Parts: sequence; structure tokens; C-alpha cells
Amino acid sequence: MKKDNFGAGPCILPPSVFEQASQAVLDFNESGLSLLEISHRSPAFTEVIEEAQETILELTGLKNKGYYPLFLQGGASTQFLMVAYNLLQNKAAYLNTGRWASNAIKEAKLFGEVIEAASSADKNFNYIPKNYEIPEGIDYFHCTSNNTIYGTQIKEFPQVNVPLVCDMSSDIFSRELDFSKFDLIYAGAQKNMGTSGATLVLVKEEILGKVQRQIPSMMDYQLQISKKSLFNTPAVFSIYVSLLTLRWLVKKGGIKAMEEKNKKKADLLYSEIDRNPAFEGIVEKEDRSFMNVVFKLKDDGRQNEFDNTCKEAGIVGLKGHRSVGGYRASLYNALPISSVENLVEIMTWFERKA
Amino acid sequence: MKKDNFGAGPCILPPSVFEQASQAVLDFNESGLSLLEISHRSPAFTEVIEEAQETILELTGLKNKGYYPLFLQGGASTQFLMVAYNLLQNKAAYLNTGRWASNAIKEAKLFGEVIEAASSADKNFNYIPKNYEIPEGIDYFHCTSNNTIYGTQIKEFPQVNVPLVCDMSSDIFSRELDFSKFDLIYAGAQKNMGTSGATLVLVKEEILGKVQRQIPSMMDYQLQISKKSLFNTPAVFSIYVSLLTLRWLVKKGGIKAMEEKNKKKADLLYSEIDRNPAFEGIVEKEDRSFMNVVFKLKDDGRQNEFDNTCKEAGIVGLKGHRSVGGYRASLYNALPISSVENLVEIMTWFERKA
Repeated sequence: MKKDNFGAGPCILPPSVFEQASQAVLDFNESGLSLLEISHRSPAFTEVIEEAQETILELTGLKNKGYYPLFLQGGASTQFLMVAYNLLQNKAAYLNTGRWASNAIKEAKLFGEVIEAASSADKNFNYIPKNYEIPEGIDYFHCTSNNTIYGTQIKEFPQVNVPLVCDMSSDIFSRELDFSKFDLIYAGAQKNMGTSGATLVLVKEEILGKVQRQIPSMMDYQLQISKKSLFNTPAVFSIYVSLLTLRWLVKKGGIKAMEEKNKKKADLLYSEIDRNPAFEGIVEKEDRSFMNVVFKLKDDGRQNEFDNTCKEAGIVGLKGHRSVGGYRASLYNALPISSVENLVEIMTWFERKA
Repeated sequence: MKKDNFGAGPCILPPSVFEQASQAVLDFNESGLSLLEISHRSPAFTEVIEEAQETILELTGLKNKGYYPLFLQGGASTQFLMVAYNLLQNKAAYLNTGRWASNAIKEAKLFGEVIEAASSADKNFNYIPKNYEIPEGIDYFHCTSNNTIYGTQIKEFPQVNVPLVCDMSSDIFSRELDFSKFDLIYAGAQKNMGTSGATLVLVKEEILGKVQRQIPSMMDYQLQISKKSLFNTPAVFSIYVSLLTLRWLVKKGGIKAMEEKNKKKADLLYSEIDRNPAFEGIVEKEDRSFMNVVFKLKDDGRQNEFDNTCKEAGIVGLKGHRSVGGYRASLYNALPISSVENLVEIMTWFERKA
């Protein structure tokens, strides 16, 4: 039985991506070699990474606008560090919307002064702060577009007159945005863009080179750009899976089509949460994420019963993060609407069964 | 036609590893889920990483000796930086045997004084320096066990009374060593241990925690150990490929069996290079690597002819590194003896054809 996979990441990808990636491990493009045994400096792999970069620039509308798409390693947690290494000369401001934003703040503090422009820690991050002031004299402003753990999402990004840096790990390519508002976007690939091991950094080159410190080679965006992401051996397989996922995304109509599908899935599930007396949402309605839907049972005593019901129905990855509890349904691009329909059906059945 | 892949890395792996990895991308352990869509915190993946760690400790004889095997991201180039971040308080000594050693030295200099204990730069790194003095008062000594680009390999490691750090990226698990002589071993996985994206760091815990600086989380060995390599999302697929490769290695008789096979392959090829008047070796004989055999044509004018001969015979990955020229045959664990036999046959045929 094929599962309905609501996991928060690494997460579901399109079946065609799994098939093509699996085939490439046996024989890459009928070369007689596995994707895993070819040189990262071979023309075959250069084509992979260049097509992935080109596709990202086209999807985001950032082509010929001074941006470079890097494929690095180490996930968003390494970017917490690299952003500060490369951009934080004196002070920076961060919006604290949860665990990952807090971690980003913690790493940046090793490099300079960090001002928390606003925080939703007072309510366990169940909302997005608004109407806060942007501090003066900062090197950049950092925010997290979607908070996987808490199920909140920024709908309106702040207007700033300094570089705007955004961790889009959990909602990149899921909705239309004016990407040119951002100067540096980073994202671990393992949600909407591929599998773990690759990290996208989409950076406007003009913001770089302004700090005084010496930056270690692997941490240096300018060096990585000059080497076209091939300063050292990259995560070849993970980058290829990103390319396959990006190709699928384009074929399915691009970001606009993803947004429509994701909103449909989210509306379906939030409507059921609001309607069904057995469940309740946790997040402020206006800040609800279209990617990670966090909810809980009104009666905690029925948890085992609901868990078993899901298990029998082939629904996996629904457990909430331990810092929030309850349930979390992640609705990433590749999750079909049918999976949400199955979940809603189970929730309705569960209500009536009581 | 199946190719004879002499590539320097990412490189040939056992066919069974390609088959099992390919299958796992479709359906991991008959779970109904792809390996690429499971959580890195799931029991299924925890088993993968723990078995890989256990196997490494057993292969190296380092079990219950205070070592921890980490699976990190970023390759050896990130380790150049992490080693210094975690161990370099005042000064360290490095043995300079080539490009990668030089890069390691460069990164370490950002963190403290670095003494080059010895260097073979005077002869384009075609030998391993010997009989050099170990400087006094150093925090650690760093060396590179095998130099992929130049085809040299340390046969006798220096005796030091400080932590001994070794970059074993290109010959780990290829020969029997007293691994307990080393305090920190690191290796990009993409030669003998798997595919790119995973990096092994095998570290004796007692050497950690002695520097005064604050270490960013992702760079901090102690933090990574406390989180069992799961501080953030690791390169799931790459770690699984490492596990498959390690299982194969054990099944084939472990490091001892690999060493015998690798020596056979190297002897076969070096004998031909020494015998065949069309070719010549580049490296001092006593320092010749059993992993990367570097050689050239005596008559440069026949290069296209030899390249085409190899291509027709299905021999790939033989081009030397641009800083050395000529040819480089990498004989990693998974390369069958038959591939070397094919190459030797071609070389003999090429000699007679002249």
C-alpha cells in the first residue's frame, strides 16, 4: 500500500523523481556508469548543476538580476553561520518566529550584535509578529518565511532598506513571491526542492564582500560563486534529485500552479479542523501556514485511538514536533490532494466514531 | 558495455551497492516509502546510521577506545576548518604533501600559528618528506595519508606525542593501520566509503574541549557528538550508501582483504609502468600510492592516440590532474582486478603498436 506521507522533511517527492533518481543510480543517462561514480567535474554533472541553477533563476524571475544560485552542503543550520560570516560587520536584526530563527540568532551572535526586532516566543510561536520597528543602522534583516514546527507562515514580508535575508527552507517554491525583494534566500533542499544533502543559497552578489573579517574558504559565498559551487566535491546525488524535482515543478506549471494546489490542500484541511469538533487548530488563523498544518485533538485521551486509525489508513509522518505536541500535516508541493482527502475522511470518520 | 572506471572520485562502488541504493530510492526496506522521503529521526534511519558507526568502529578496531564516528557534511575541505576551530589554540604543525594539505594549512592559519613541519613542494609533491623534526609545543600534528593528485602515500606515519590528525579521504579502509595511533581521522566518503555528500570524522573524544574560543554549532565536534550526527538533517542517502559500502567491505573480508587486493592491483600496474618503454612513473618509488597510480607517456605526442585507445576499450577516468598532467589510475577498493588487467593489456598493446 502506497502511504500518504505527511512527514515534515525529508519528505514526499513526486513518484517520477524517485523513479528517475533510482534509475540514475544504476545507469546515468545511458552512460554505462552510475550517477554515484561520475566525477563532479565531468561535463555530465556540469550540465546537471547548470540546468538546476538556470531553472531556479527562471522560476524565481531572478535571471539577469545579479543573483547567483549556489548548491552547498550543511543545511540551513550551516547558513545560520555563513550568513553572519559574510554579512554581519556590526549589527543585524532578526525576526524570532521559532526554533530555527532562534538558532539563526544564536549563531549570528558569535559574529556581531544581534537585535531581535520582534518575537512570538510569548505564545510558543503560534503567530507572526507584525507592526514592529526595523532597527536603524543594521547590516541586514533576517526572517524565516515558514515555521515548520509551529505551522506559521509570513504572508507579508517587512519592508526594509537593508539586505533582506530569508530562510525559506520549508516553503520555497510553494507560493508566488516577488523574489527580488530578497537579497539572500537559503533553503535546505529536503522539503520542496529535493532530498537532504543539498542546500540552495540564492544570493544577490552586490551585497557580498563588505565585511572586514577573513572568511574560511568553505564559508565564503564569493569564493563558492567564483568556483560555481564546485570548490570541493558537492553532494552529487542530492543536486541531481533537486534538478529532477525542479523539472517536475516546471512541467506541472511552475510556482503559480503549486500555489493553487497547496492552497486547495490547506483550505481542505483547515476547513475540516475548524468544522470537526474532535480537533482544533493551534495557530492564529491569519498566520496559518499552507505548508505545515498544526492541530490537536480536543480530547487528549483519544490520541492512541487516532494514531492507530491513521496507521491503519496508511497515513504517516503526522506526529507533531515535541515542542508543540499534537499533529502536523506537511503539505509540500509533491503531496497529492488525494492524501489530504484521505486524511480529512479519516478525521470525519474519527469524529463520528466517538 | 560496462566501463572500467579509474576515476579519482566520486568513484566506482561495488555493483551490489548501486543495486541496493537504487532499490532503496524506490522502496526502502519494503516500507512503502522511498529512502528519500523518510525522516532522519525515524527508527529506520537511526538504525542505518548506528550500524554504519558500529561497523566503522569494528573495522578500525577502535571500539570501546573513546572514539566517536561522526557523519557530517561538507567534505574534507570543511574539516580543514573544523579541525582548526576545535583543536588549534596556539600553534599546530602540518606536513605539506600537496594541494589538499596546502589547503588545510591555509584554513588553519585563520585560527592560529601553523608550522609547516616539512614539504615536498620543491619537487611538485612527487615524494613524501621523511626525517623531519616535529616542532615543540604544538596543539596537534596534521598529515594527509594519501595524495590523490600526485599519487604518493605515507607508508610510515610520524611518531608524535600530541594529537595526530589525518586526512584519509583517499585511502581510508584500503590498508591495515593501527588506527589507535590517530586521534582524529577524517575522510570524504566519495572514494572507498560511499558517494559524495557524507564525511566521516572519527575522533577521540578526550582531545576535544580544550580550546577557548566559542565554536559555531555546526562546526563543534562535541555538539555534533552529543547529537549523534543529527544536530540537523544529515545527508540521508549518502550515509545509507556508506552503510551499504561498509557492509560489502565486511562481507569481502574487511580491511585486510582489501589491502591484499589493492596491493595486487597496484603491483600489476606499477610493474607494467616500469616494464613498458612507452610509459614512466612520476613518483618516488618508495612513496608510490596503492590507491592512485600516476604515470605518463614518454612521448607526449602519442597522447591523443592513447586517449582514444582507452576510450574504445571502455576505460574511463584516467586523465591526470591538471597540476601534474599525464594519467592517474585510481584503484579504490571497489575496482576489480579485471579492470587493471584490461588497462595493462591496453598499455602493452599500445607499446607494440608504436
